[in-house]
Amino acid sequence: MTKKINVTIWNEFRHEKSNEAVKKLYPDGMHKAIGKGIAASDLNIRYATLDEPEHGLTDEVLNTTDVLLWWGHCAHGEVKDEIVEKVHRKVLEGMGLLVLHSGHFSKIFKKITGTNCSLKWREEAEKERLWNLEPSHPITQDIGDYFEIPNTEMYGERFDIPTPDKLIFVSWFEGGEVFRSGCVFERGYGKIFYFRPGHETYPIYHNETVLKIIGNAVRWAHSDYKAEHICPQSKPIETLTSKDIDFGKAGIEQGV
Amino acid sequence: MTKKINVTIWNEFRHEKSNEAVKKLYPDGMHKAIGKGIAASDLNIRYATLDEPEHGLTDEVLNTTDVLLWWGHCAHGEVKDEIVEKVHRKVLEGMGLLVLHSGHFSKIFKKITGTNCSLKWREEAEKERLWNLEPSHPITQDIGDYFEIPNTEMYGERFDIPTPDKLIFVSWFEGGEVFRSGCVFERGYGKIFYFRPGHETYPIYHNETVLKIIGNAVRWAHSDYKAEHICPQSKPIETLTSKDIDFGKAGIEQGV
Amino acid sequence: MTKKINVTIWNEFRHEKSNEAVKKLYPDGMHKAIGKGIAASDLNIRYATLDEPEHGLTDEVLNTTDVLLWWGHCAHGEVKDEIVEKVHRKVLEGMGLLVLHSGHFSKIFKKITGTNCSLKWREEAEKERLWNLEPSHPITQDIGDYFEIPNTEMYGERFDIPTPDKLIFVSWFEGGEVFRSGCVFERGYGKIFYFRPGHETYPIYHNETVLKIIGNAVRWAHSDYKAEHICPQSKPIETLTSKDIDFGKAGIEQGV
Amino acid sequence: MTKKINVTIWNEFRHEKSNEAVKKLYPDGMHKAIGKGIAASDLNIRYATLDEPEHGLTDEVLNTTDVLLWWGHCAHGEVKDEIVEKVHRKVLEGMGLLVLHSGHFSKIFKKITGTNCSLKWREEAEKERLWNLEPSHPITQDIGDYFEIPNTEMYGERFDIPTPDKLIFVSWFEGGEVFRSGCVFERGYGKIFYFRPGHETYPIYHNETVLKIIGNAVRWAHSDYKAEHICPQSKPIETLTSKDIDFGKAGIEQGV
Repeated sequence: MTKKINVTIWNEFRHEKSNEAVKKLYPDGMHKAIGKGIAASDLNIRYATLDEPEHGLTDEVLNTTDVLLWWGHCAHGEVKDEIVEKVHRKVLEGMGLLVLHSGHFSKIFKKITGTNCSLKWREEAEKERLWNLEPSHPITQDIGDYFEIPNTEMYGERFDIPTPDKLIFVSWFEGGEVFRSGCVFERGYGKIFYFRPGHETYPIYHNETVLKIIGNAVRWAHSDYKAEHICPQSKPIETLTSKDIDFGKAGIEQGV
Repeated sequence: MTKKINVTIWNEFRHEKSNEAVKKLYPDGMHKAIGKGIAASDLNIRYATLDEPEHGLTDEVLNTTDVLLWWGHCAHGEVKDEIVEKVHRKVLEGMGLLVLHSGHFSKIFKKITGTNCSLKWREEAEKERLWNLEPSHPITQDIGDYFEIPNTEMYGERFDIPTPDKLIFVSWFEGGEVFRSGCVFERGYGKIFYFRPGHETYPIYHNETVLKIIGNAVRWAHSDYKAEHICPQSKPIETLTSKDIDFGKAGIEQGV
Repeated sequence: MTKKINVTIWNEFRHEKSNEAVKKLYPDGMHKAIGKGIAASDLNIRYATLDEPEHGLTDEVLNTTDVLLWWGHCAHGEVKDEIVEKVHRKVLEGMGLLVLHSGHFSKIFKKITGTNCSLKWREEAEKERLWNLEPSHPITQDIGDYFEIPNTEMYGERFDIPTPDKLIFVSWFEGGEVFRSGCVFERGYGKIFYFRPGHETYPIYHNETVLKIIGNAVRWAHSDYKAEHICPQSKPIETLTSKDIDFGKAGIEQGV
Repeated sequence: MTKKINVTIWNEFRHEKSNEAVKKLYPDGMHKAIGKGIAASDLNIRYATLDEPEHGLTDEVLNTTDVLLWWGHCAHGEVKDEIVEKVHRKVLEGMGLLVLHSGHFSKIFKKITGTNCSLKWREEAEKERLWNLEPSHPITQDIGDYFEIPNTEMYGERFDIPTPDKLIFVSWFEGGEVFRSGCVFERGYGKIFYFRPGHETYPIYHNETVLKIIGNAVRWAHSDYKAEHICPQSKPIETLTSKDIDFGKAGIEQGV
């Protein structure tokens, strides 16, 4: 029997409580819509949200998570630095991470990219078409050449990120912009996928293609390899013969 | 008349005060040895050290720095987070950054790489040979195929960094290890060069080839392009026609 | 006095002779329009075309070319393999190469990328908007956030190329596609820039922004470093001690 | 029941016939030693050699090969260009390719890299230690931090290849050189792994770690995604409104 992949879907879960329109779209929260949408026999899906103790990301949860999904927007600043540190360390040790939509501005994504992650934006319900640049990549299996989202918020370039290891999707927007909407990174032993689609006021996490891609990405980001990073003092493997410092070569006095 | 490049050499400057051997090698500090070694008519060189107010990195200094060099080791933890934030923002806005030797474990380098930057190490005065993998790169001009450092601390792989944009040097160590000793990254509008050579107890910053490379890297990392990263709300360039949300497509009720 | 950059603009130069509309747009050929458009005191500009002996690319010309521009379309197959070999070798040795528009399907670009360079296309005079993803790159200086070409042929993804070292421009097309329109590669010691704009039936090589970018790219692709690639048998630098083959370790008989 | 991976091991198979020492090490050829060494229930292994009709790489064989291994050395020039073209096309369409040792100078590897693939070399039976830079990569599973080959030919930098998508192994040589010994590339839909170890006069293809890595790489390079690259003329997805060419903008006469 194959081991199941342990997936934890983290959601800020605020808009769904405070905004009636969002509540109708996602009565149990976007995390539950995603979880329901990607449910499959090879996945163990759990949920965690901002307002739980430790944001739901206790050591026990993180230690048994293979892939973490992250959705945040209006409360990035409320995520505790110590939890971000823990998530970051787990990613470097081999936990997969999917950063969704407005998660581009989350503490964890900025920490991983080392950049500001700024972009252009506009919320006018326009059409988006995502072009599949890597049809042979595990993340895009069964997706086809492109797919459309009829109404969405716009994100436009320049997106301030490091050059992705692989650029998977580029978006065309009705209003005239483009965006690197699917980007693969590796940090430490962890695989990271940034995926742009998804917004609280549009039913994007009910879109079958979007859910299909998230499911593909979960399996791609999962790894059985997990290890700590240490800085070991190492004994020489070969015999050292140059222990006498030749300061003469550096043009300065001996005897230092 | 060409504009000079404003270089600020930052040094922790602790070993030179507390250790007699280091003091003899670098009586005025490693920063001054580097500054003297790369002095040239196109460079304006200043210095900044940990124990100065704001670590010598006031807004005035940072705002007029084109390229910052960073040497730290025993006191990484004493560098204030707010100063690291400022340096980071300046790099993203276009300031060049050279991270030297044990600076691999500095807060600023970890912040830029998003990784742990761990490695193997050993201090037994062994020989290092740095191979030039990119002889056509500006950083390696007039360096030749390889150069040697007769006595040095060893750093060994695996070095936990993101895949560099360009791998410039790979080191061979007498004791049997290898290391990615010259690595180029870009973050935001800033160019970053990690350069391994340099250690407080060896006269490496008196080595002409090492100094030549640092000088080359300063000129490479310098850019006249400087800009802030903002997240502007943008008006559509094209006329939007799809403002009516088609919730039917998503398989959920209208009227949301 | 600074050395000038020797630029050779190569053009198939067939459409301009056979098609009246093209002839009106580019009476002296697209190569001359480009040459006139980028003319500057730091550039020595020459021309070469398919129907000249050796396609105008004699050893004398290639040996004194710093940056070569390539425009071809209907006659890729007529370019002699031996000339392509020479151009390729010069690129690997440090000559810059700018591949323009339909040059994506030229022998030299396929040889450099190692891929098929296929794409989608359509010629219906639609609007293109090129987004500048790398505003701090030398190629995009003084370009701004984006620029538009009012009427052009469409090229759409998936563009079958290796992941570029740097993605400079992404195009938005009126008809709904996107394209990686400015791509930087390095091969050997040569810098290569693929730049999509330009088509025989549109006045794109009279567009000031397009010409500005080509001029920027010429200066970026130029390098004073030029060297052959050789495979030298090298004497050991360190003393070898393991000359006796230990076949025992491999589990096979001694004495081989 | 899972589909097996169809592996074809191609060998020049000349040294084994002409040289007694090589014959003793590899009586049935290096291809058979590799095939025996990686044999497993999920692999269908076949062989092909230079002196067979079509070098053993008929359409029937190539059309049913998921991963091709390539070993060549003294007879690169005898491989027919038309066969190289076919292999290349299959790689771009999704066939995996493992290029072994002196295959660095094969026509197929040069075609894929677009570079000269030159390097330094020396055959003095020295020790090599391969450092594992990517312990979480599928190719390095169960390998550990490093492994050694007691006697081997040396390959040294600069290795003239494009920057690999991922650098997996770096070699340390007793004689003082380093080398990028395990390099991952992607071209079209095909995954390529260059792996340095292996030489006709050393029993390297009897080394368990080398064989383990080759087996890992076969599984990594395999993909169920296979597709041709075509250049389709595409109908616009969006309605085009800018069909009237605005030649005025370009500063030239109307009526073209």
